[in-house]
Amino acid sequence: MDPTAAAGPSPGLDDIRAAAARIRGHVHRTPVLTCATLDALCGARLYFKCENLQKVGAFKMRGAANAVLSLDDAAASRGVATHSSGNHAQALARAARERGIPAYIVMPTSAPAVKRAAVEVYGAEIIPCEPTLAARESTLREVVARTGAAFVPPYDGERIIAGQGTAALELLEDAPGLDWVLCPVGGGGLLAGTAVAVRGLRPDARVVGVEPAGADDAARSLAEGRRLPSVDPRTICDGLLTSLGERNFPLIRALVHAIWTVTDPEVVAAMRLVFERMKLVVEPSGVVGLAAALGHAGDLRGARVGVIFSGGNVDLDRLPWVAGGDGR
Amino acid sequence: MDPTAAAGPSPGLDDIRAAAARIRGHVHRTPVLTCATLDALCGARLYFKCENLQKVGAFKMRGAANAVLSLDDAAASRGVATHSSGNHAQALARAARERGIPAYIVMPTSAPAVKRAAVEVYGAEIIPCEPTLAARESTLREVVARTGAAFVPPYDGERIIAGQGTAALELLEDAPGLDWVLCPVGGGGLLAGTAVAVRGLRPDARVVGVEPAGADDAARSLAEGRRLPSVDPRTICDGLLTSLGERNFPLIRALVHAIWTVTDPEVVAAMRLVFERMKLVVEPSGVVGLAAALGHAGDLRGARVGVIFSGGNVDLDRLPWVAGGDGR
Repeated sequence: MDPTAAAGPSPGLDDIRAAAARIRGHVHRTPVLTCATLDALCGARLYFKCENLQKVGAFKMRGAANAVLSLDDAAASRGVATHSSGNHAQALARAARERGIPAYIVMPTSAPAVKRAAVEVYGAEIIPCEPTLAARESTLREVVARTGAAFVPPYDGERIIAGQGTAALELLEDAPGLDWVLCPVGGGGLLAGTAVAVRGLRPDARVVGVEPAGADDAARSLAEGRRLPSVDPRTICDGLLTSLGERNFPLIRALVHAIWTVTDPEVVAAMRLVFERMKLVVEPSGVVGLAAALGHAGDLRGARVGVIFSGGNVDLDRLPWVAGGDGR
Repeated sequence: MDPTAAAGPSPGLDDIRAAAARIRGHVHRTPVLTCATLDALCGARLYFKCENLQKVGAFKMRGAANAVLSLDDAAASRGVATHSSGNHAQALARAARERGIPAYIVMPTSAPAVKRAAVEVYGAEIIPCEPTLAARESTLREVVARTGAAFVPPYDGERIIAGQGTAALELLEDAPGLDWVLCPVGGGGLLAGTAVAVRGLRPDARVVGVEPAGADDAARSLAEGRRLPSVDPRTICDGLLTSLGERNFPLIRALVHAIWTVTDPEVVAAMRLVFERMKLVVEPSGVVGLAAALGHAGDLRGARVGVIFSGGNVDLDRLPWVAGGDGR
């Protein structure tokens, strides 16, 4: 039985397949790489889906492309809008430029210049706001009312979840027969899409969400059976600070085997291993899956394990193991 | 007409095809990646063959695997030997371990501990020698006489050249119709193999060797029509200090369109771009092809250009753009 059929909320596997067809040619089909050294350290066979090599350096390009390409021409002509200062903003700006439509990005005035520049390079319009959630939301409402643009949420939306799930679809094509898939969880868009794709194709496979011990709202939420907010998160993984989304939570609750947590030193050690052994640039948030695999070698022994590297946008002037890096 | 047929010296395209069949499953089939930002900077379509993602972090694994797997069982049982402290030593040690035969690596006593460790991890025996070419060669002769091991040269050998040429074979399969291929040149094993493969498959394609301006013996050798030694080379590209090999030179002279040189600041800038935009770890020697593409955008405009990233073994504690890095 397809366990996604009983999950209730969409998207389902068919939505992810439709998203994959829609975004083909608009995103990279990223490689699945292996590393004998890391296999030996874990006692398992690891298959790394390299979304750090995706356009804009993160899986976020998939959901943004799916959202932008799902709009009909009339809606698309009015553009898209979001509030974000991170990878989602860049991804939406790039997807909009490729379709030739406007993108409006609400960004707190506290965002660093480099993040503003990364969005402006794609021709998006930045609308500054005060650095509070209330100001972000009210500014976004104003922008949408003024322009008629379609709001594209960073993680809490069906088209976003379906788009993010396409990475796991490709992973299972390139590495059939996986027993486990380890996936970072912040807002839960990638994890929800991954869980729908993996369990839809392989009902017996185990999908594990991985988050920093210093931002463990997903683990606490699953333990309590209700969404708990991420309060005062402290971690080097700046892409995993968000609370679980409303649409993401029921999918994760229904389809995910467990949430594992990792410490910042484990994340930095895993990141260093990937730079050194795999010759890949990964960001702390992107490498939590490997950090968890190294910490759970006993669970994974002898298994075929998919690991999603979700992104590679890291400050190369301040790598955490170099003196002067932040090294938390 | 196949221009390799008139080149005289082997290996030819058939030898490279045989090497590819021989080493399949023993080396990674590395991905060919693209990057819209770098395409825009060059005004060309660039296809990067990522040998930095190869086993041991460099294309050297291909030649070493081909040499080791070409030995008959009797010869193989006596092992293989070489003198090297670099990627070739690691590659040969690893290829020997995978066949279950001994490897003897002659290494100068001046080699850093980390380079010795990188070979010892594969179970190779290190034979120390004085840090002179004469001592390396005499020590190697002693080892070969004592053990009966087969000498596997780092670049100046037909099986090595044929093995290295398999990277270009895969590049042309994954990115058909290339007009140019840009390839680093040190001793010339990779460049010779690349030229044989590319010109054999696409006689009209242009193969360019790229070397540091501070180690430009290949450019001078081609200009003079005879091998000139690399004298007092000064460059951050520590993998490209070697003089052209005897077997490599006639192949390069017959089949290579030109040698282009790049400065160390151009190399560091290209390396930074690859880390930042492609999320790949490349070493200075490995990225000279892109540095040349950026400097020759006028020649390449509108063309389909293959670029070989030859390796990714770089000191991550001393990246050249970070304060405290060597930053030459």
